[in-house]
Amino acid sequence: MSSERMPELAPPRRILLGPGPSDVPDRVLRALASPVIGHLDPEFAAIMDGVQAMLRTVFRTANRFTLPISGTGSAGMEACFVNLLEPGDTAVIGVYGLFGTRMVEVAERCGARVVPVEAPWGEIVPGEAMTEAIGRVRPKVVGLVHAETSTGVRQPVPAIAAAARTAGSFLILDCVTSLGGCPVEIDAWGVDAAYSGTQKCLSCPPGLSPVTVSDRALAAITARKSKVQSWYLDFTLLGQYWGTGRVYHHTAPVSMVYGLYEALRIVLEEGLEARFARHERNHEALVAGLAALGLDLASQAGHRLPMLNAVRVPAGVDEAAVRRELLGEHGIEIGAGLGPLRGAIWRIGLMGSSSQRNHVLLVLAALESALRARGAALGAGGAEAAAAYYRGTVGGDGAVA
Amino acid sequence: MSSERMPELAPPRRILLGPGPSDVPDRVLRALASPVIGHLDPEFAAIMDGVQAMLRTVFRTANRFTLPISGTGSAGMEACFVNLLEPGDTAVIGVYGLFGTRMVEVAERCGARVVPVEAPWGEIVPGEAMTEAIGRVRPKVVGLVHAETSTGVRQPVPAIAAAARTAGSFLILDCVTSLGGCPVEIDAWGVDAAYSGTQKCLSCPPGLSPVTVSDRALAAITARKSKVQSWYLDFTLLGQYWGTGRVYHHTAPVSMVYGLYEALRIVLEEGLEARFARHERNHEALVAGLAALGLDLASQAGHRLPMLNAVRVPAGVDEAAVRRELLGEHGIEIGAGLGPLRGAIWRIGLMGSSSQRNHVLLVLAALESALRARGAALGAGGAEAAAAYYRGTVGGDGAVA
Repeated sequence: MSSERMPELAPPRRILLGPGPSDVPDRVLRALASPVIGHLDPEFAAIMDGVQAMLRTVFRTANRFTLPISGTGSAGMEACFVNLLEPGDTAVIGVYGLFGTRMVEVAERCGARVVPVEAPWGEIVPGEAMTEAIGRVRPKVVGLVHAETSTGVRQPVPAIAAAARTAGSFLILDCVTSLGGCPVEIDAWGVDAAYSGTQKCLSCPPGLSPVTVSDRALAAITARKSKVQSWYLDFTLLGQYWGTGRVYHHTAPVSMVYGLYEALRIVLEEGLEARFARHERNHEALVAGLAALGLDLASQAGHRLPMLNAVRVPAGVDEAAVRRELLGEHGIEIGAGLGPLRGAIWRIGLMGSSSQRNHVLLVLAALESALRARGAALGAGGAEAAAAYYRGTVGGDGAVA
Repeated sequence: MSSERMPELAPPRRILLGPGPSDVPDRVLRALASPVIGHLDPEFAAIMDGVQAMLRTVFRTANRFTLPISGTGSAGMEACFVNLLEPGDTAVIGVYGLFGTRMVEVAERCGARVVPVEAPWGEIVPGEAMTEAIGRVRPKVVGLVHAETSTGVRQPVPAIAAAARTAGSFLILDCVTSLGGCPVEIDAWGVDAAYSGTQKCLSCPPGLSPVTVSDRALAAITARKSKVQSWYLDFTLLGQYWGTGRVYHHTAPVSMVYGLYEALRIVLEEGLEARFARHERNHEALVAGLAALGLDLASQAGHRLPMLNAVRVPAGVDEAAVRRELLGEHGIEIGAGLGPLRGAIWRIGLMGSSSQRNHVLLVLAALESALRARGAALGAGGAEAAAAYYRGTVGGDGAVA
């Protein structure tokens, strides 16, 4: 493509029901377009303070070190591991999907010895398996994915967190998809370091990774024998900029911080409990509709995420063609499966602003139509089953902001 | 600060004449507010292609691997070093300001042995000193800062690039502040890897780092003995997402890519040569005005950057108070000195959209007023000297977009 006479930027409006990004409220888009000011401007410092305070509320933590990393969720993952691991350290990591697999990759690149504790994709890792490995290995770090976006399972955390604390390990928790959509209790659970992404249940565009780190973990970082291998992600340096000193480290992504500020205001205006209930309710409605159609979930019953639904593709259906039809004819994005679930599932996200009744009804109708066109054996009335669920219950299910 | 009832986001409009960010055109702000679509959406792929094509034009390169890293300029620096260096490798780095110093820090965190070639802050590093060290050490990597933002000098590149090529070394060039404001000739100079930032002469908000890497350097990365220590910044993985395969790596910062797309369109509509001439002209006008006031530049004559002016603070003047007055009374941001130049200079940036006649006249008038109020011994008529320069010449000096 020639760079001369590049066409005007005109991205279409989509309905984002994949694994993220989710729909971004207009208020957040307008925040992005606010005038840019300097990263050392006192007015920007006040905005940074606000972001930090709101992130503490959302993470349910008093951790002083709570801030957005200037990169996406994967940068947040890398930041937690490179700061807490030194070459020769050991890590026990739960692996039951793509993001646990990625944790192993990242930890190994820190020079750590990794002991993976595996479970089939679609299941949680049993708490006993993790606590056994933690007690046996007594690792420096335990890695756990709270919301495994590749499979749709929600991993129970408290027992594993307690085992990590008993063993003197630091628990790193991946909350990329869960934060703002279901309870994340950093302090109550005793999590030492956690990271998230802005583009899931916070409904801000992708680009930042909210991170929170306990004082206990920060003390261990201060006591490291070697420097953190990443200068860009060095928590000590980042803390000096986000702390009261405002010591220049790198130029903060000012516009993205504006967007996060506004996205967090919207989250707190709705209230965390109401937001969690909304996610749960729309998930249940979707599941009711899928059941009427005879479509199964691939994630373990009793441990399903409300914001990410892994739906089994009926036998004989070209799953990519269905996704293309939803995108091309309806403007609806849903996600493909990854790894061993490639071709076997769709991932329907109902995250943040995307979690609303109209989207549930619409995606069920569109999916049913696309499947009927392909002659799939289906039940009937998916959207009506979801609508009946809403009629039979009370609670908020609308869009916010 | 409580997170309840956080005030509305209302950043002030500033005139950004510091070391970056620079003023962002309204077109770019509006681009940021475009609807978010998925990072794997075919429509986003077309936007990515456009960004890559325009970046090649701006970098003056045919390098296939030319893309924005999902982090700020410092992430781009780290990306180039972690991909090209392995533990035990050697790097020769020119150090004549903060960003050369940072290169040393980053290279050492890769486990490399660093041979710094130093020059006083405010001067370039002599080409002979660099070529001597390169020939003697025959390093894996040579690090050089094209535009040293901390001192305002422009480092000549071609002879050092040739020496690096002769020695079989890979030249990494920091173009954070130069790209889009003065000539950067990646292919003609024979640079192997270069990185920039969006928030300087491209006048996009901070958050992305345009990077370009030669096929020769990519081949060396493919032949590494060890994995790249950063998974997030691994060029091989990034190339698979930005290449034709569109293999998911991390979720691209969609809105920031929109902003960069629009910012690059504006750069190319003006034309690189016209843009360079505008930067040069407004720099010369500013220097004429400063000279009339009797204010000196701290950067070496003959090697001054047009977009970053290091102005010596007159004896006895509280430089921070002057900056506060400019910000508080005029809404003008200028920068402080760093490192050994802290307290000794102001840094006046005329970058991208900030490089315009009205800003030159205004900052001279405001600076003169702030200095007179403090009783500094000054010449007279700074703004008029700049205006006379404009009257006596022809050429574009206005804002774009």
